[in-house]
Amino acid sequence: MMTPFDDTYFMKKALQEAEAAFEKGEVPVGAIVVIEDRIIARGHNLTETLNDVTAHAEMQAITAAANFLGGKYLTGCKLYVTLEPCQMCGGALYWSQISEIIYGATDEKRGCGSMGTTLHPKTKIKSGILEKECSDLMKRFFIEKRNLN
Amino acid sequence: MMTPFDDTYFMKKALQEAEAAFEKGEVPVGAIVVIEDRIIARGHNLTETLNDVTAHAEMQAITAAANFLGGKYLTGCKLYVTLEPCQMCGGALYWSQISEIIYGATDEKRGCGSMGTTLHPKTKIKSGILEKECSDLMKRFFIEKRNLN
Repeated sequence: MMTPFDDTYFMKKALQEAEAAFEKGEVPVGAIVVIEDRIIARGHNLTETLNDVTAHAEMQAITAAANFLGGKYLTGCKLYVTLEPCQMCGGALYWSQISEIIYGATDEKRGCGSMGTTLHPKTKIKSGILEKECSDLMKRFFIEKRNLN
Repeated sequence: MMTPFDDTYFMKKALQEAEAAFEKGEVPVGAIVVIEDRIIARGHNLTETLNDVTAHAEMQAITAAANFLGGKYLTGCKLYVTLEPCQMCGGALYWSQISEIIYGATDEKRGCGSMGTTLHPKTKIKSGILEKECSDLMKRFFIEKRNLN
């Protein structure tokens, strides 16, 4: 059966969250949590707005998804995020036992991969979905920021 | 000059937070943030109460300290925590650029050390303050929990 609900569909939704962060002057990262093709949580980076280093998109999406589910484990859930999670978010995802992490752009410097963060053995990871779009949004943010200063 | 404000003094305050967690049936971990011998934030583990894997003591203390300071960086601050921080909390502390982390008991399995989490180059780390007290509280919690089930 054909379904519109593929990885690209959901990454577009995460990108919409990243664009919302961009509009607020935040590093544009967005995340959503999906269970059985249904979006149960959304989040975007709010570290500047909230003055809080812990306010990454993924952290908010994890908390919101747990609230929705009424339990702290995200078994059966997929996280779509526009940028590869950092150590903090990877560590939170480890505790959540989430089933799958799908990210867009790779964070060569601060991503879980290069930092050697351990994910939960139950968690699958996939990368490169809408990579160019996710990466271009980040680049545009940093270019505009540089021109403003 | 003699001062009562040494590492043991502040770790006792973190232990009081851990005891508050214990009373709520939470894994007993407590944390405080100190700047110039003044406690500006407190937190204890609330993962069960809030149904949220991100609700570790350190995460709450980091957020509260940033709220107090009105800025997201914890330069000049020390975090006292009864148990060695995990990957998530170590990752959050990395972003915060906190000046010092002082912990009580070592977490052999899930601590930053054994997980290989990268701390910020500006962050010093010290361990073993009231180690036995911090560790005994954890052991008592898991023994009581086992007896209840």
